[in-house]
Amino acid sequence: MALRWGVACAGQICHDFLTAMGTLPAGDHQVVAVAARDMQRAKDFAALHKIPVAYASYEELAANKDVEIVYIGSVCTNHYEMATMFLQHGKHVLCEKPLTLSSRDTIALVELAKSKRRFFMEAVWSRFFPAYEYIREQLASGAIGDIVQVNANMTIHFPEGSRVRTKSQGGGTVLDFGVYVLQLVLMVFGPRMPLEVRAVGHVNNTGCDDATAVVLKYPGNRTAMVGTSALADMNNDAVIWGTKGFIKIVDPFWCPTKVVSGNETKEFPLPPGAHPYFNRNSSGLRFEADEVKRCIRQGLLECPKMMHEESITIAKIQDEIRKQIGVSIK
Amino acid sequence: MALRWGVACAGQICHDFLTAMGTLPAGDHQVVAVAARDMQRAKDFAALHKIPVAYASYEELAANKDVEIVYIGSVCTNHYEMATMFLQHGKHVLCEKPLTLSSRDTIALVELAKSKRRFFMEAVWSRFFPAYEYIREQLASGAIGDIVQVNANMTIHFPEGSRVRTKSQGGGTVLDFGVYVLQLVLMVFGPRMPLEVRAVGHVNNTGCDDATAVVLKYPGNRTAMVGTSALADMNNDAVIWGTKGFIKIVDPFWCPTKVVSGNETKEFPLPPGAHPYFNRNSSGLRFEADEVKRCIRQGLLECPKMMHEESITIAKIQDEIRKQIGVSIK
Repeated sequence: MALRWGVACAGQICHDFLTAMGTLPAGDHQVVAVAARDMQRAKDFAALHKIPVAYASYEELAANKDVEIVYIGSVCTNHYEMATMFLQHGKHVLCEKPLTLSSRDTIALVELAKSKRRFFMEAVWSRFFPAYEYIREQLASGAIGDIVQVNANMTIHFPEGSRVRTKSQGGGTVLDFGVYVLQLVLMVFGPRMPLEVRAVGHVNNTGCDDATAVVLKYPGNRTAMVGTSALADMNNDAVIWGTKGFIKIVDPFWCPTKVVSGNETKEFPLPPGAHPYFNRNSSGLRFEADEVKRCIRQGLLECPKMMHEESITIAKIQDEIRKQIGVSIK
Repeated sequence: MALRWGVACAGQICHDFLTAMGTLPAGDHQVVAVAARDMQRAKDFAALHKIPVAYASYEELAANKDVEIVYIGSVCTNHYEMATMFLQHGKHVLCEKPLTLSSRDTIALVELAKSKRRFFMEAVWSRFFPAYEYIREQLASGAIGDIVQVNANMTIHFPEGSRVRTKSQGGGTVLDFGVYVLQLVLMVFGPRMPLEVRAVGHVNNTGCDDATAVVLKYPGNRTAMVGTSALADMNNDAVIWGTKGFIKIVDPFWCPTKVVSGNETKEFPLPPGAHPYFNRNSSGLRFEADEVKRCIRQGLLECPKMMHEESITIAKIQDEIRKQIGVSIK
């Protein structure tokens, strides 16, 4: 039976998510309704993606009894309020990253979802790529020995004035890119807080972190070095180093199609979508959609591949990084 | 006129240094004498490298009027005392890295060398490779735009019990490898102390840092991420990122023969030596020998390509890293 989605917002990421869903077998997923603040935008989006109902208010979407799960793809400054509303209306929620602007709000959403007994997940799509499944298998097999370090740098140049570089719009590379480098560290080293987090960073005149460099200490002689930057396009490979070798997740490491492990290079091609995508490799959002369906049909309230604890730890590390580099939280 | 060297110690690095010097034109450098604690070792070394005089004490070497400069290649725990003695005997000194075990001792040696008006340099051979000359030219030309980040990881696996992993033998990756990653950062960002140093690390049961991960903040939106590890062999490329591109110094970045800048790859092959080397690319020590001769013949007391201030800053950063990760200094 198709999973019945509502879509909150009609922006770029929502476009990409529905286009990716369109690459899945017909009948697996059904988009029941879309809501945007602007009726014309909602209608145009509904027409393009063949969605039967368009709303100009999120409240109407929340009230739609046919919607099982809401995908929240709005700007992150609205996530907390919107996720709260949908959960209170009894919807399951898949919410884009960064989930909220502070660990306090992330914890509150997790608590609300648990109390309402609804599925709730931060949309860390990376975790569901076949490339990531392969990496987890490689790690579990001991192919690269004992892990000693995880290195990941997420860097995309954005000009000054961009949302990512504007505090009032929920920007900051710790929130926007940090979630990706940290989710990788947690996937390798586990969901708990590291022993230590040490960060430096550069804060712009909007109060927003344009660039950070962070080191993390884990038990068992393990470390991570992660960076985020909107100042320049640097290499976005990520590497997991072990005593016997390494796994390289080829740029873009957060939505990869290529993994190098030892002398072996594995390719994981993505299908094209019916419409052009705004972001790189967005067809890979299909794996996330399927995982959400699997979890909900099995009655799970959290996804074992992207647990609540992980979202909370990521948010706590992000709080700590921002505190150390002098960025106010919320 | 040949520069007249005395060699303090008869170990591996001294062997490599003299073998590399042997690749230079005859008559440029002359090794007058070698000293080691053990007479037989000194004699064997002298025979192999055709050195006329061998001593079983460093004091005799210091007293040799014919020696202009002493190359100190002993274990680092002796550097401070030996460099002090040679400087007090009026010798110029080229001393292997790590120069000393603390910034206090490094500062004291620099002050002594200045007061004695003798040339004094930490043997950071990296700086004199043709590959590094090329990198400095590329940076000065603005080829990669404004620099935003320097990344360097120096990792060589050593088993437990190795000197590098033994505190009483002056070990620790901050001292042994840190000098290399930090000299690169300083070459790019200048000799001053960074605005911030933040480090994590793992300390072994001898009290010695087996692995560290360090981030540095510099003015002008610049950062560095550097690591050191004796736990595993990881990749030892270093990368300098700019707003318009990058320069990659191919592994081993501290003694490289290959540099990638934009789409261009430059190779800088090294000549073979008359004897096998203990360490990778040791023929490149020839460039350091020639630079030292050039400086001394020009009457310089410090090398403009590896200044006293840089050795002091490196030592201060090393002190700070060790303080943050809980390693006692000296």
